[in-house]
Amino acid sequence: MVKQERAARTRETLIRSAAEVFDREGYAAASLTGISSLAGVSNGALHFHFASKAALTDAVERAALRRLTEVAEVPVPSAGRVQSLIDVTHGLAAALRGDVVLRAGFGLCGEASRMPAADLRGWWQGWVEGTLKEAEAAGELHPGAAARDVVSAVVAATVGFEVLGTRDVEWLSAATLTRFWRLLLPSLVSSALLAELAPEGGAAAS
Amino acid sequence: MVKQERAARTRETLIRSAAEVFDREGYAAASLTGISSLAGVSNGALHFHFASKAALTDAVERAALRRLTEVAEVPVPSAGRVQSLIDVTHGLAAALRGDVVLRAGFGLCGEASRMPAADLRGWWQGWVEGTLKEAEAAGELHPGAAARDVVSAVVAATVGFEVLGTRDVEWLSAATLTRFWRLLLPSLVSSALLAELAPEGGAAAS
Repeated sequence: MVKQERAARTRETLIRSAAEVFDREGYAAASLTGISSLAGVSNGALHFHFASKAALTDAVERAALRRLTEVAEVPVPSAGRVQSLIDVTHGLAAALRGDVVLRAGFGLCGEASRMPAADLRGWWQGWVEGTLKEAEAAGELHPGAAARDVVSAVVAATVGFEVLGTRDVEWLSAATLTRFWRLLLPSLVSSALLAELAPEGGAAAS
Repeated sequence: MVKQERAARTRETLIRSAAEVFDREGYAAASLTGISSLAGVSNGALHFHFASKAALTDAVERAALRRLTEVAEVPVPSAGRVQSLIDVTHGLAAALRGDVVLRAGFGLCGEASRMPAADLRGWWQGWVEGTLKEAEAAGELHPGAAARDVVSAVVAATVGFEVLGTRDVEWLSAATLTRFWRLLLPSLVSSALLAELAPEGGAAAS
């Protein structure tokens, strides 16, 4: 049992170390030797857990997707689905600032040289789409705003924040997200709902 | 003279071939042998023009930046600066669809392993910033819309379109751009100006 716990811990350490090396040097330049050395384990131990760089990278992506779903799958606040979308974008930006595994998982989506094991950007797009369709069905959207148009704008802007944030973390600040929502919300919801929404994120954002 | 022309043509072919290989395989995986083979020249000819992969990559980035400035530096249409911004985003999306050198130049901005010779995303951000400050000074912006907030939203969304467009070209379609502007414009400009603007792009877009 203790042995199994130690193995699981080593596995987690290797995933985190791989994410750190991908984040710093890029996926292609990352070496397994550099990763095992950062994790403080032997090359043999790394290969016991992961047969190849591809297998380790798949594990990073899957771990990143688990974290993304944890960020997104929170209870809908009383202010509704649009507030939920605002809160989750704030939560995602905060998680990208602090969580190297999540950051590496998104970064791997842009790798031309490999097929992703878990498509974080695709999952994110699906989540935004589902949430906005529910908001539309609940009558939360402005009559002039089609859910589909809003999906494009929100997905593109949040992917932009994520990509630009890898060079300048200000793009992932709460202030940047708040300004984005302050600008977009009047086109998105009725003025009655607008007064109830918090572009800086509600209780769910932290 | 003929010899100089031939050398210039070979140089252009090598830059284009490098961009194609970066676009398809990613920067790190691209080999000089693959690039010279695609260009139909010997390894020796490649090294005559470019001392290293880094030098060739710098040349791709500089060529991409020249194309980006050509897309952006067009006369301001009579409808004003905001229309100019709309037109240029349409022009940029069209150029990204068709121009592999421009696409590779933007892609290289995301390479953690190297310092860019020409920062396309930074240049683009500067251009959007300058254009929106002029729009603000000309009284084109909605009183509630600060130029700074609009800059973040437009830069993030366009970088998002570019990144997402590498996997699915629909993100760079005229329809996607038009829907984005249709959604954003009511928050951006006064209702008087709104009636005059073409979210699908004016004469300058193609």
